[in-house]
Amino acid sequence: MNVGGEHYRTVWMEGTAVYMINQNKLPFRFEILKSENHWETCMAITDMAVRGAGALGVAAGFAMAQAFLLSTGKNKLVLIREARQDIESTRPTARNLFYAVERVYMAGLNSPEQALAEALKIAEEDASSSQKIGETGAELIGKKANILTHCNAGWLAFTDYGTALSPVYTAKNQGKDVFVYVDETRPRSQGGRLTAWELENEMVPHVVIADNTAASLMAGKKVDMVIVGADRIAANGDTANKIGTLGLAVLAKEFGIPFYVAAPLSTFDISISSGKDIVIEERSGNEVMYQSGADINGNIVKIRVNNPGSKAYNPAFDVTPAKYITAIITEKGIIKPGSVSIKRVFENY
Amino acid sequence: MNVGGEHYRTVWMEGTAVYMINQNKLPFRFEILKSENHWETCMAITDMAVRGAGALGVAAGFAMAQAFLLSTGKNKLVLIREARQDIESTRPTARNLFYAVERVYMAGLNSPEQALAEALKIAEEDASSSQKIGETGAELIGKKANILTHCNAGWLAFTDYGTALSPVYTAKNQGKDVFVYVDETRPRSQGGRLTAWELENEMVPHVVIADNTAASLMAGKKVDMVIVGADRIAANGDTANKIGTLGLAVLAKEFGIPFYVAAPLSTFDISISSGKDIVIEERSGNEVMYQSGADINGNIVKIRVNNPGSKAYNPAFDVTPAKYITAIITEKGIIKPGSVSIKRVFENY
Repeated sequence: MNVGGEHYRTVWMEGTAVYMINQNKLPFRFEILKSENHWETCMAITDMAVRGAGALGVAAGFAMAQAFLLSTGKNKLVLIREARQDIESTRPTARNLFYAVERVYMAGLNSPEQALAEALKIAEEDASSSQKIGETGAELIGKKANILTHCNAGWLAFTDYGTALSPVYTAKNQGKDVFVYVDETRPRSQGGRLTAWELENEMVPHVVIADNTAASLMAGKKVDMVIVGADRIAANGDTANKIGTLGLAVLAKEFGIPFYVAAPLSTFDISISSGKDIVIEERSGNEVMYQSGADINGNIVKIRVNNPGSKAYNPAFDVTPAKYITAIITEKGIIKPGSVSIKRVFENY
Repeated sequence: MNVGGEHYRTVWMEGTAVYMINQNKLPFRFEILKSENHWETCMAITDMAVRGAGALGVAAGFAMAQAFLLSTGKNKLVLIREARQDIESTRPTARNLFYAVERVYMAGLNSPEQALAEALKIAEEDASSSQKIGETGAELIGKKANILTHCNAGWLAFTDYGTALSPVYTAKNQGKDVFVYVDETRPRSQGGRLTAWELENEMVPHVVIADNTAASLMAGKKVDMVIVGADRIAANGDTANKIGTLGLAVLAKEFGIPFYVAAPLSTFDISISSGKDIVIEERSGNEVMYQSGADINGNIVKIRVNNPGSKAYNPAFDVTPAKYITAIITEKGIIKPGSVSIKRVFENY
């Protein structure tokens, strides 16, 4: 990934410190947050300075490694067990986080160095699977393509490359003429803020659109394909992702446009047979009623944008049935959604 | 219409002054704008203190009447002709505006009193057709109904009652248990600001939703019907309306939910055979990149909400093909979209 011409990762370690791009300040300010110990890393996760499935897992693994590296004295193991609880309570629904913490904890029982090695390995795996998703997905992109995406499933949501945006970056590097329509993605506007900022840094031509604009673009044959990320994929291919994904998938089907989900195999939850079993998180309506942004002096402020006397309903995700999904792009190749094809991939995994 | 328990109209005349609810300040402040002459009324139209198809036509008619009532001296007719040009150049794409100006101008050639009478008649016709749309549309609403609407086609867009919201108000007055999902309607948020404010004043239960939430609600069987307004309806029923309308119509069809357009016959443009001939206005991308709202002190301010280095694409309207529209609710009854049925209504009009 590329920020103003320099190579970065979303989250990384130097010595015992964890560094991360502070996503709360983007796109208005580019700031690196340094976290000296697992407490500070936990706070960064809770405050959403780091967010996105992959990046959250990596940050949590780093926090667990910090606890092993920095805890001393005869109460050391008690402190480490408390640290694990602290980390696991930051974002209780983030599946990658628990997976990473478990791996680093088990390794750390041998030695602090092994905890660190395991945490770094998780980060490398995250970057590597994202890179492979890019290579696989780029094969689906023509020489000239208008791609629509939703929310942010770019490198900011992982250690590097991303999922939905990784094929776009690969295609661009291959010399393809790609153009991206970026759904603003209300209410938190991760598309208009994070995806647009990533694309600007990668010099990928793009425009931001209000979420309600996709239908008009599709009807006007201005969109060649849709690529989105995923939060959780059931055994049959039903996909939970940011609110608005389902609507795009239905529209894509109606207008004959391929609809792709890009995600590493770690996003699949094959213990869940279909999307019906996925519980959707409802977030505060204030996310819809207020909006933050930069004032004329560049200060980040919050204003009320909708009727003060009304409430908002704000589900964070929706579930797209597999029948609307053309294919799922993974680090192990392209999977046609459906229980049989997904089961086959995991049997060989 | 009802503001804090008091009866109002969106725009009205007293003596030679035009009064209007200043929609630029809503929902954060309720202010009445007084316009002493046609120049001030023109400025109010240009600044969008008054907006919406019906209300714009009425305000323009009032401005024309002001010119007849207030112009004196031997250059009187020159001044009145200049006034007409001033009014017609405020919002050059607003069809109702030209229609109203023409009617008031022709009447005013007889006497200033006749200009005023004609302007007041246009306002009454606007309120009356909106009221009839409410009565007709309410018949489609069950005893208990969850209704989804987009943008603002309520009384603020007309003199009174509105179009899409008029059936909701009538149904509520009939004792029906109505609940409204209000699309925020980015980028200008007329749903989250104006529709939500109207519904609050009329004590209709409602929630604001981000525009991308409709699919999830429909899939979850939480929406019984969709009602929207219209900007322009072609002879075959294809309907231009606020961006996002097409997406809702496609989703409604997919999930088996009736999709209604509510509009007076004056919104039909039977000189246009289909929606293909409707040119869509593209507005400044800054409407997407910036957002206005109230700060903590209640001051109305503007902030940047998306990536500073990106541009936005911002078409103001989209066209919904007639095949997605269940029926059109008018003051002359319910029309099935299609050239034959629409032609029949206009032959008997």
